[in-house]
Amino acid sequence: MASFGDIGLAASINIASALVFLVAFSILRLQPLNDRVYFPKWYLKGLRSSPLRSGAFVTKVVNLRFESYLRFLNWMPEALKMPELALIDHAGLDSAVYLRIYLLGLKIFVPITLLAWAVLVPVNWTNRPSDPDKFTHSDIGKLSISNIPLGSHRFWAHITMVYVFTFWTCYVLQKEYETVASMRLRFLASERRRPDQFTVLLRNVPPDPDESISKLVEHFFLVNHPDNYLTHQVVELFHGKSDTAQISSNLENYLQVVYNANKLAKLVKEKESKQNRLDYYQLNYSRNQSKRPLMKIAAERERVTNDPDSIMSAAFVSFKTRWGAAVCAQTQQYRDPTTWLTEWAPEPRDVYWKNLATPYVQLTIKRLIIAVAFFFLTFFFMIPIAFVQSLANIEDIRKELPFLKVIIDVPFIKAFIQGFLPGIALKLFLRCLPNILMIMSKFEGFISISFLERRSASRHYIFNFVNVFLGSIIAGSASKQLNAFSTQSAKEILKTIGVAIPMRATFFIMYIMVDGWASTAGEILMLNPLIIYHFKNFFFVKTEKDREEAMDPGSLGFDTGEPQIQLYFLLGLVYAVVTPLLLPFILVFFTLAYVVFRHHIINVYDQEYESGAAFWPDVHGRVITALIIAQMVLMGLLSTQELPQSMPFLIALPVLTLWFHLFCKGRYEPAFVRYPLQEAMMKDTLERATEPNLNLKGYLQNAYIHPVFKSCDDDKEDEEDNEKWEEESVLVPTKRQSCRNTPLPSKMSSNSSPSLPEVVQKDPLP
Amino acid sequence: MASFGDIGLAASINIASALVFLVAFSILRLQPLNDRVYFPKWYLKGLRSSPLRSGAFVTKVVNLRFESYLRFLNWMPEALKMPELALIDHAGLDSAVYLRIYLLGLKIFVPITLLAWAVLVPVNWTNRPSDPDKFTHSDIGKLSISNIPLGSHRFWAHITMVYVFTFWTCYVLQKEYETVASMRLRFLASERRRPDQFTVLLRNVPPDPDESISKLVEHFFLVNHPDNYLTHQVVELFHGKSDTAQISSNLENYLQVVYNANKLAKLVKEKESKQNRLDYYQLNYSRNQSKRPLMKIAAERERVTNDPDSIMSAAFVSFKTRWGAAVCAQTQQYRDPTTWLTEWAPEPRDVYWKNLATPYVQLTIKRLIIAVAFFFLTFFFMIPIAFVQSLANIEDIRKELPFLKVIIDVPFIKAFIQGFLPGIALKLFLRCLPNILMIMSKFEGFISISFLERRSASRHYIFNFVNVFLGSIIAGSASKQLNAFSTQSAKEILKTIGVAIPMRATFFIMYIMVDGWASTAGEILMLNPLIIYHFKNFFFVKTEKDREEAMDPGSLGFDTGEPQIQLYFLLGLVYAVVTPLLLPFILVFFTLAYVVFRHHIINVYDQEYESGAAFWPDVHGRVITALIIAQMVLMGLLSTQELPQSMPFLIALPVLTLWFHLFCKGRYEPAFVRYPLQEAMMKDTLERATEPNLNLKGYLQNAYIHPVFKSCDDDKEDEEDNEKWEEESVLVPTKRQSCRNTPLPSKMSSNSSPSLPEVVQKDPLP
Repeated sequence: MASFGDIGLAASINIASALVFLVAFSILRLQPLNDRVYFPKWYLKGLRSSPLRSGAFVTKVVNLRFESYLRFLNWMPEALKMPELALIDHAGLDSAVYLRIYLLGLKIFVPITLLAWAVLVPVNWTNRPSDPDKFTHSDIGKLSISNIPLGSHRFWAHITMVYVFTFWTCYVLQKEYETVASMRLRFLASERRRPDQFTVLLRNVPPDPDESISKLVEHFFLVNHPDNYLTHQVVELFHGKSDTAQISSNLENYLQVVYNANKLAKLVKEKESKQNRLDYYQLNYSRNQSKRPLMKIAAERERVTNDPDSIMSAAFVSFKTRWGAAVCAQTQQYRDPTTWLTEWAPEPRDVYWKNLATPYVQLTIKRLIIAVAFFFLTFFFMIPIAFVQSLANIEDIRKELPFLKVIIDVPFIKAFIQGFLPGIALKLFLRCLPNILMIMSKFEGFISISFLERRSASRHYIFNFVNVFLGSIIAGSASKQLNAFSTQSAKEILKTIGVAIPMRATFFIMYIMVDGWASTAGEILMLNPLIIYHFKNFFFVKTEKDREEAMDPGSLGFDTGEPQIQLYFLLGLVYAVVTPLLLPFILVFFTLAYVVFRHHIINVYDQEYESGAAFWPDVHGRVITALIIAQMVLMGLLSTQELPQSMPFLIALPVLTLWFHLFCKGRYEPAFVRYPLQEAMMKDTLERATEPNLNLKGYLQNAYIHPVFKSCDDDKEDEEDNEKWEEESVLVPTKRQSCRNTPLPSKMSSNSSPSLPEVVQKDPLP
Repeated sequence: MASFGDIGLAASINIASALVFLVAFSILRLQPLNDRVYFPKWYLKGLRSSPLRSGAFVTKVVNLRFESYLRFLNWMPEALKMPELALIDHAGLDSAVYLRIYLLGLKIFVPITLLAWAVLVPVNWTNRPSDPDKFTHSDIGKLSISNIPLGSHRFWAHITMVYVFTFWTCYVLQKEYETVASMRLRFLASERRRPDQFTVLLRNVPPDPDESISKLVEHFFLVNHPDNYLTHQVVELFHGKSDTAQISSNLENYLQVVYNANKLAKLVKEKESKQNRLDYYQLNYSRNQSKRPLMKIAAERERVTNDPDSIMSAAFVSFKTRWGAAVCAQTQQYRDPTTWLTEWAPEPRDVYWKNLATPYVQLTIKRLIIAVAFFFLTFFFMIPIAFVQSLANIEDIRKELPFLKVIIDVPFIKAFIQGFLPGIALKLFLRCLPNILMIMSKFEGFISISFLERRSASRHYIFNFVNVFLGSIIAGSASKQLNAFSTQSAKEILKTIGVAIPMRATFFIMYIMVDGWASTAGEILMLNPLIIYHFKNFFFVKTEKDREEAMDPGSLGFDTGEPQIQLYFLLGLVYAVVTPLLLPFILVFFTLAYVVFRHHIINVYDQEYESGAAFWPDVHGRVITALIIAQMVLMGLLSTQELPQSMPFLIALPVLTLWFHLFCKGRYEPAFVRYPLQEAMMKDTLERATEPNLNLKGYLQNAYIHPVFKSCDDDKEDEEDNEKWEEESVLVPTKRQSCRNTPLPSKMSSNSSPSLPEVVQKDPLP
């Protein structure tokens, strides 16, 4: 175990480098040149315009006002100043609640740190081990539970504290769950009209050879939801030729069409990339009209709309009231529960279009494949990496590729291959891990981006737990662990982990500094977007639109950020009783990350979708998991300390914690998965009273069109729609308070369309 | 291991005793004296009247017609003759599907037995062990997998067969799930009108100090289900005095009242027992009018109806259409998911009244308590029994209670205390186990008897698995097993079980004969009801009504029967590959039990409730569990046989089986827990077309009254109702085909009322 000196040195190096990053950020952000890197959110909202447009050239690039440098750390209090309600309005509920995860960490760990230092550190420190030979610990060891001899009654202090910590954590968790649940319900209630409130996603419509399926579905909803059904679009994979004409004429009548328009999507991408040049090289294209992607796109769209094979067996069904949609989304429609599936339609930005039409059997097979694949990824990912690393063996290279001998014998290159390549292979894999997990989730067939991210986050957490937490403790690859787990008894495994835990405290302190502090400090500088923006700006930017596109606000990335936070929850809870010295390092991480991410959420990140904090049950569940793991670890540790009478107290803890979890699950989780009819009815009634002449059908008309079609219709249709809606807006006085937070369609479903049609954004709700 | 001779002897003894029982039954059932014991179902249906009423005395008691004895085994084909649809009509879907469990056993095990005997027995038998010293098995051992030497490639035959058996079992399970699901849906669709189709049970209505809660609830449903809401009764625990008058006047208007009428229930019980005497000792009572329980009851009922403290926070809310009820039952009503809880109302007979008003927090605490209690019951039940057994220690008794010395020194009594008492303590406990489990389920707060039974069955299965299956294999008390499991690794545990399995084959064959065959043969004779009926008949029966009450048809008892069957599924699947000799014994059990229970369901058992085969997902899940256990056991067994290349094939099996389970769960389970809107709408439409003038409110009026009130109103109200309904029935032509299978209110909710009011039974559906 390291001494205080070692840790102090490492800490000061890390703190110094973090400070350098902070100062660098504070200065860089003041330069007008970087404005689009550090304040893209305001540009996207149209509340800030380029500082390059006016003034002298120098002041456009560098900030020369001396006084602004004096207040260079001002961004911190500024980031904290915005009240939560304003933040929700500005950046959406998802972002605001994401920040609460860091706050949750502070709420849990500040009192725990104080208590642990006030009670456990003295108890550990003042102990005089009976067998000094056995306890030749360093300073840190003296603060830790391992300073206490076998069978000592001082362990009762630790047992009491683990009870106190558990109850405190559960109390905070419960309060937080309650708060977030009511925030979510308040958010849903106060929200302006959104298309997904009225719309249900219908999947797996069974084909029928006798009747036109479009008619069939229309009848189904007219019959089974006669009072609520408003409009629908049945789109389906079938092969009859005679129906084509009828269907395509029907298609014109219906409103939301789900097209299997993958080919089209590619074309639109092509158009996108060329559109940019269009402004600049307009002349070149005007000569060669037929080759313009826009023309191709129009033809392809024609083809898609007319070809029944492009039509998927999914549809967006809209209802007259929110009540009707809530009823349809929460009930089973048909006796076969794998067809006529209904669920809440995700927000238009949140739809992952490719997965809308996966049939049930295919879906279950895909889940099996991914479950097996994830198991192998978690436990055997080291095998291909070890293989890549073995390729970096100098002797092998020399033997196999003798002509490279000259190069690899250069000492520097040799050192690089031997020292860095193996590490880089692992690093690269870990870098790609979120993408691999996201691909797995997409393959599994989930239909909304928010769910894809939540799923990836769960997997990432499991991967971290096995490979970072257990991997560091048992010190061996996960496949070795797997072997150990199957050949050791449950008691032995717990004992192994329990005994190893205090010894790995120093490692995890270093880990927190290098992974947690450094990555947060790196995030604040936004180095990647900064470099890329300036690179693009220098070489490629020709028009103002180019500059807009060069701007990369990024987004929160629940699937990468949350598993990292959860690892710190786990470390904090595990070491709270064992080695309280670790806790302050976690507090620094949570504080720093909270400030940095609050700043970025306000100024930088662009929200991809709004799920209404649907991820909170996952967050809650994982903290509970961490709590139970911490209790098990302590059980393993104390089982080696010859204090058998403590066991019943320790066994009771996970049982109680699990019960608490089930209690919370029943009490709060429904708020995140269902929509109470009473809320729906309330909003409907309110709306009917305030807007009796609302043209809902018109409103829902373009909400769920594949982004491919939207982008190519943007120019003409948007304008028409705008005019139409401006007219309607005049009839009713509007207050566009929160309409700003629906700016972009998701990048994941397609990279094509820069914005939703204005219809969605400018709705005339008072 | 026993030889063929041993097993043959045991089998012939068991078969002989089973035959004796069968013959005794065949003869006894022909005696008119026993008619009410062996044909009570027909009496309850009113299709058979007492043979005692007419004819000579001798022919009334003993059957003297010789020719009927010639055909004395005729009951068997007769029991099998009734087609399934008629059986459903006669005894309900629950009973018909319960029989399908035995059929499922036959469908799975007949082909498996044939294949195992055709393939595996020769493979095992023809083997010449390389090390004859090690393989000095008896004859049975030669048929078993343990006859094959280490590392032999003959094990591939077993691995192939376990795949074949798994696929066959899954195939049959899937077909059966499909059949039962469609039977259930057809049953629900073809059923005549029942009050629970229109009614939703509302629980946990939150108290409100400002408004009369009754009004509050009425408004809630009028607002949130305006088009569907028909009528409701809000009944609630509150303490204001001023509201009393208003509430009690409201009460009169509302229809279904849930009363906390436990005190009243006791009085009614008292009345019940005395009512019987009433016919006989009429004079005694007529002198002392004020003491008659009937008078007390009337006063108490007055008190309950007027006292707001007796009112529970639960209500039965009825809707105009099945569609409305289906919507309300499947959706969340209020933002707080622990209040305004709605779920399908159970059938009136199926309601467990005492649990209707348990608040959420109390419910979760109760579940925790029961979970812990069940854990201790399963793993430590031997401790109190061992304590009781230690009381039977002769030396201790002699020391502590010297005055008993004279008695316990009698050799016979001494032998009895030492030899039988310990066994009797265990036997008594096992006898009481279903009751203990049922009490636990009731304490947990479930609201329908069918669910209580399903819950008890799950627990019984777990208890059997731990204490019968594992207990016989590891040979030790469950608490010792628990210790072994925590100190052994997963691999070792599997190995221990795998190695022990072939050696315990003889034991389990004996177990199947003693427990399975003998208990089924005992069931056919109905010895308990037979003795009790004749005992009562001889000593107590004074009136015809007495004789009716002395009749004890009993019921299926899902919570006792199903776990036993499942144990045989487990044994069959485990031994199919290991010791195929066991399979025929299981086939005999399934065949015998099928015939016996089919006879009893047709002639004896009286259905307590109708849940529409809601138990099938449990049955399916437990067979899957057995399948996975069988695969694990084989894995443990083969892991000791030095054939490492077989492991991947064996590990893939449980993964595939689990996946199959999830597939079936998603595919078929919703049919058992939800009610598709399309089905509801279809029935509504049909009914509206055929009975446009239906007085639904009148129909639902008395459906959900606490049985206590029903029984004391029986005399006067039933007659009124009957008249009213007879009148209405005249308007529409009726065909009372299936109205016969709703005869009795559940005995469990209260032992008071002999029948539902006629309203429920005679409904005028065409």
